[in-house]
Amino acid sequence: MANLNTEFHRDLIATAHALADAAREATLLHFRKPGLLADSKETARFDPVTVADRLAEERMRAILAQRRPEDAILGEEYGAKAGTSGLTWVLDPIDGTRGYLSGTPTWGVLISVADESGPVYGLIDQPYIRERFEGGFGLARGQGPSGEFALACRAARPLADAIMLSTFPEVGTAAEHLAFRRVADRVRLVRYGMDCYGYALIAAGQIDLVIEAGLQPYDVQAPIAVIEAAGGVMTDWQGNPCPQGGQVLAAANAAVHAEALAALNG
Amino acid sequence: MANLNTEFHRDLIATAHALADAAREATLLHFRKPGLLADSKETARFDPVTVADRLAEERMRAILAQRRPEDAILGEEYGAKAGTSGLTWVLDPIDGTRGYLSGTPTWGVLISVADESGPVYGLIDQPYIRERFEGGFGLARGQGPSGEFALACRAARPLADAIMLSTFPEVGTAAEHLAFRRVADRVRLVRYGMDCYGYALIAAGQIDLVIEAGLQPYDVQAPIAVIEAAGGVMTDWQGNPCPQGGQVLAAANAAVHAEALAALNG
Repeated sequence: MANLNTEFHRDLIATAHALADAAREATLLHFRKPGLLADSKETARFDPVTVADRLAEERMRAILAQRRPEDAILGEEYGAKAGTSGLTWVLDPIDGTRGYLSGTPTWGVLISVADESGPVYGLIDQPYIRERFEGGFGLARGQGPSGEFALACRAARPLADAIMLSTFPEVGTAAEHLAFRRVADRVRLVRYGMDCYGYALIAAGQIDLVIEAGLQPYDVQAPIAVIEAAGGVMTDWQGNPCPQGGQVLAAANAAVHAEALAALNG
Repeated sequence: MANLNTEFHRDLIATAHALADAAREATLLHFRKPGLLADSKETARFDPVTVADRLAEERMRAILAQRRPEDAILGEEYGAKAGTSGLTWVLDPIDGTRGYLSGTPTWGVLISVADESGPVYGLIDQPYIRERFEGGFGLARGQGPSGEFALACRAARPLADAIMLSTFPEVGTAAEHLAFRRVADRVRLVRYGMDCYGYALIAAGQIDLVIEAGLQPYDVQAPIAVIEAAGGVMTDWQGNPCPQGGQVLAAANAAVHAEALAALNG
C-alpha cells in the first residue's frame, strides 16, 4: 500500500467503521428476536442465512456505492462486484450464523480491504457486546465495554502451554480432523464455539492458536489483517498465505506457529 | 418460600445484585490482563483457579457477612459456612474458569439462594458483556447492553429442530458421552464452549437444550432457578431434581425435555 497516503488510509478506516456501524444496527435488529427467519443454502451442513445477514450486507454495499464507488466488493451474500481502483472490500455480514441463531455473543461482522498483495486492513465487530477489533495501516486496536485497548499477540510459549480455539470439534474432512487432533492433543487447552471471535482473541493476546478448515475468503481476510497487525501469523496448513481461505492456522507468534505447523503435518 | 413476605424477597434480590456487582468488579480486575495467575486444583483436567475467582468469592462472602449473617453459604472456592436461617447462598464466582483464562465472554458469576426445597432464586451474570439473567420470587428477567428483557423459554418444537449447547464435546465419562451423543445426533444443531451462558440462553428463549455431566451444586443451582422461572425444566438424566449437580439436562419446555430424556436413556 506504498501508494496510499495517510489521508487516504483515514478515509478507508472511516469507511470501514461506517460499514461496521451499519452492520451492527442491521444485525441487532433481528438478533434474539422471536421468529428469526433462517433458510438454508446448504441443508446438509445447516448453514442458515438470515434476514439480518442479507440486510447487513445490503446496507454495507449501499455505503460503499456512495463512498467508494470505484472499489470492488466480495461479499458472502451477494457475491463479487468489479471495481477499477485496485482495492476490494471483502465482507461477511454475519460470520457464525449458527452462533447468531443460537443467541451466542461470539459471531461477528468481518470487513476488510485487500489490494493485489492480499488483505491490508481488517475489522472484526461483535455487535451485541459492542466490541470492535481492527488492524492495518499502522493500527492495531480494540474498543469494547471496558473501553479502548491495544491489540498485541502474546509472546511465544511452548505448544504444550498453548490455548487453542476452533469453531467445531469436527474441523473439516476426516483427514483434516486427524491433523487438527495432532495439534489438539499437544496443547494445554482446546475450546470450541467462538466463531470469528477466536481470531480476535489471538490479536487481543488472550490465546495462542485457531485452526480451522473449509473457510472462504470472506471468513479469513479480516482476521488475517487484524492478527498480522497485532504481531501474529496466519497461513494455510502448508505455511503459505491463505487469503482464499481453505485450511487456516492462525498463531500468536512465529514460534508457536512453527510448532503447530509441524504437528499438523506430523 | 411461603413464609417469606415480599419485603424479604426484595432484600434477598437486592443482596444478590450487590453480590453480583462486587463479583463483576473483582473478576474484571483480572480478566484479559497480562500475567493472569492460574494454578490448578486438578492438573489432569486443567481446572485453573484464578486470583479473580478467589477475590470475587471473598468479596461476596464479606457482603453476606454484613447483610445476611444468619444465612449459610456454599461457595466453590471457600466451601461451606453453616447458618441458622434455613437459607443457603450458593456461589460460583467464576463458572467457566477455562473460558475466563481464554478471554472468552461466556463464563459467568453464579449466585443463588436455596431453602430446604432447593434453589428458589438464581442469578447468572456475565461481567464483561455487562449482562445479567435472574429468576425466582416471581421474577424472570434480564438486563444487558441492549437494555432490559423478559426471560421466557421458547415453545416446544421437535427434538430434530432443537439447538443444544454443552461446554465440552467430551461430556463426562465414556458412557455419559455415548448418552450425550444419542441426543446430539438427533438435534438440529450442537454448539460447544458457552459455559454457564448456555443455561442463560435457554431462559432467554434462544436455545432448547443444555446437557452436561460431572457438575457441582454451585454449577447448577442458579441455572435451575433461572430456567424454572422462565418456564423451563432442569433435571438429572433420570428426570429427577438435580440441585446437587452431576448429570444435568436443562430444557426449554417439558416436551423437548421428555424427548431428550428418552434419547439419553435410549
